[in-house]
Amino acid sequence: MAGRKGTLMSVRKDIKVLDATIRDGGLCNNFNFSDDFIRALYKMNVKCGTDYMEFGYKASRNMFKESEFGKWKFCKEEDLRAIVGDNPSDMKIAVMADVGRCDYKTDFLPKSESVIDMVRVACYIHQIPAAVEMIEYFHELGYETSCNIMAISQAGSDQLSQALEMLAATNVDVIYLVDSYGSLYPENACELAKLYLAAVEGTGKQIGFHAHNNQNLAFANTVETMTYGVSFLDATVQGMGRGAGNCALELLLGFLKNPKYNLYYVLEFIERYMLALKAQGVVWGYDVQYMLTGLLNRHPREAIDFTAKQRTDYSEFYKALLEND
Amino acid sequence: MAGRKGTLMSVRKDIKVLDATIRDGGLCNNFNFSDDFIRALYKMNVKCGTDYMEFGYKASRNMFKESEFGKWKFCKEEDLRAIVGDNPSDMKIAVMADVGRCDYKTDFLPKSESVIDMVRVACYIHQIPAAVEMIEYFHELGYETSCNIMAISQAGSDQLSQALEMLAATNVDVIYLVDSYGSLYPENACELAKLYLAAVEGTGKQIGFHAHNNQNLAFANTVETMTYGVSFLDATVQGMGRGAGNCALELLLGFLKNPKYNLYYVLEFIERYMLALKAQGVVWGYDVQYMLTGLLNRHPREAIDFTAKQRTDYSEFYKALLEND
Repeated sequence: MAGRKGTLMSVRKDIKVLDATIRDGGLCNNFNFSDDFIRALYKMNVKCGTDYMEFGYKASRNMFKESEFGKWKFCKEEDLRAIVGDNPSDMKIAVMADVGRCDYKTDFLPKSESVIDMVRVACYIHQIPAAVEMIEYFHELGYETSCNIMAISQAGSDQLSQALEMLAATNVDVIYLVDSYGSLYPENACELAKLYLAAVEGTGKQIGFHAHNNQNLAFANTVETMTYGVSFLDATVQGMGRGAGNCALELLLGFLKNPKYNLYYVLEFIERYMLALKAQGVVWGYDVQYMLTGLLNRHPREAIDFTAKQRTDYSEFYKALLEND
Repeated sequence: MAGRKGTLMSVRKDIKVLDATIRDGGLCNNFNFSDDFIRALYKMNVKCGTDYMEFGYKASRNMFKESEFGKWKFCKEEDLRAIVGDNPSDMKIAVMADVGRCDYKTDFLPKSESVIDMVRVACYIHQIPAAVEMIEYFHELGYETSCNIMAISQAGSDQLSQALEMLAATNVDVIYLVDSYGSLYPENACELAKLYLAAVEGTGKQIGFHAHNNQNLAFANTVETMTYGVSFLDATVQGMGRGAGNCALELLLGFLKNPKYNLYYVLEFIERYMLALKAQGVVWGYDVQYMLTGLLNRHPREAIDFTAKQRTDYSEFYKALLEND
């Protein structure tokens, strides 16, 4: 458990790459992607060997107005099928369901009637009991499930041990370590990963890592935790995601040694689709303001606001962050 | 030796931060910095607790025309003194001397007459014998010295062991692991660092790390190798440096726990000086083309050319790199 699993030359068959471009990237543009973009992304992921593609959220249409978001905030079955048909590929389809922000008892079909393969349940640590209920519900429906415990850098270690113990006793397939604030360094990310791995030892469950790039460590933390046994790896094309973004899919596929992964198609997608998105004014990625919230282990909302206002007074921003701590 | 030295809360008194903004950043603009910029950078470094500031190269004026470069390619004593006077600060002044590209026997004063404290001798591994000669010469003149072995990711392990053995027998103060191509991952960077550390054990010499950010790992590799005992850490403001650039000084000072380091002044400098530099069109930093040369363990020259031509056909670039390997 303590040592690294394999070497830089190993092909680890347990590794699963999950592309979260629409879901985390959608937070940058209110999920307003063209169908053309989504279709091309789906094709790209199939060609480059991605194991799971997350299409977005299954958010409550009672809590969120459909007119205010693109369709991938809601991931209706017919919208998914308009892109993937019956998904005649080896790649699995995932959606995210936030605890407290979805109508899971009405909005999910049984797996036998859905093109969705995995439901990822996202929660804060105090919501674990609610997450457990949802996980068992989705499991009963026939879905693979994951539990993505967010903002883990602010959880106490007692809380975390309890949460992991509770989850290890459920039917969940994957438990995710989520560095929501991008505040983890490789050293403590790996220590946390070892806790997660120990908690599921012998259960057959896998551990995932979802990185944010506030301190430019998203890729590093992903590959470092991986070497200790983390096997579900989230990434997004060009790291597209809220604020500083995520681990870049192109970096991750470049790193992985399994010949099933093919970097070429990601590069092609970047030049054809991502550059246009950036040219339209969609903004994400590492910048000084995100480094500061990451360093202070804080939600990036103030940095996102700083970015939106096109401010560059980093020193004033830092002073203000230190004051309102 | 095998374990980490200290924790994320430790203050390691052996750590020395070296700002290489002018030297590595100068490769982006032919060293054409204004005196105002250099003076402000010097003041910033003194205020933020930087231990060493590298002003540039001592390049041969026989080999390079003074009219084609800014003055920091040559670092004449009078130019240094015009900025720092007698350097009435605790911060030390460094310059770099490349093996085979400087006139070291004529261009260096004895330390007692110079404001320079440290000469960093840069070489490829086959130039170690020449580097040793220069190191002993500078040591005799009274300078601190380092040996920066470049492009280490392409050196054979036998070669490296011999080089380290030769250097361990000299008067050099610091031996640097230089990831010129930005191709190292935290895992192999740390393994290399352990080799360097083992080679100097008991000699009182220190090991340094100079990162490049091709795979967005410059900061990660710097802090990870540090935890195993590397103590001279190179950084540049906003990572300014050739191609994908270096480890960002602001990330590094944010990470380090020694209260002598003060991030605030770096932020102030970025907003006042670095943004202007970028607005003038000076280009550096992580981008897909650099990731590709890093991944393939190649000199970034083709990626620099791709950048200069404002190309974005990443997939064609990748194909071409694979072909001419």
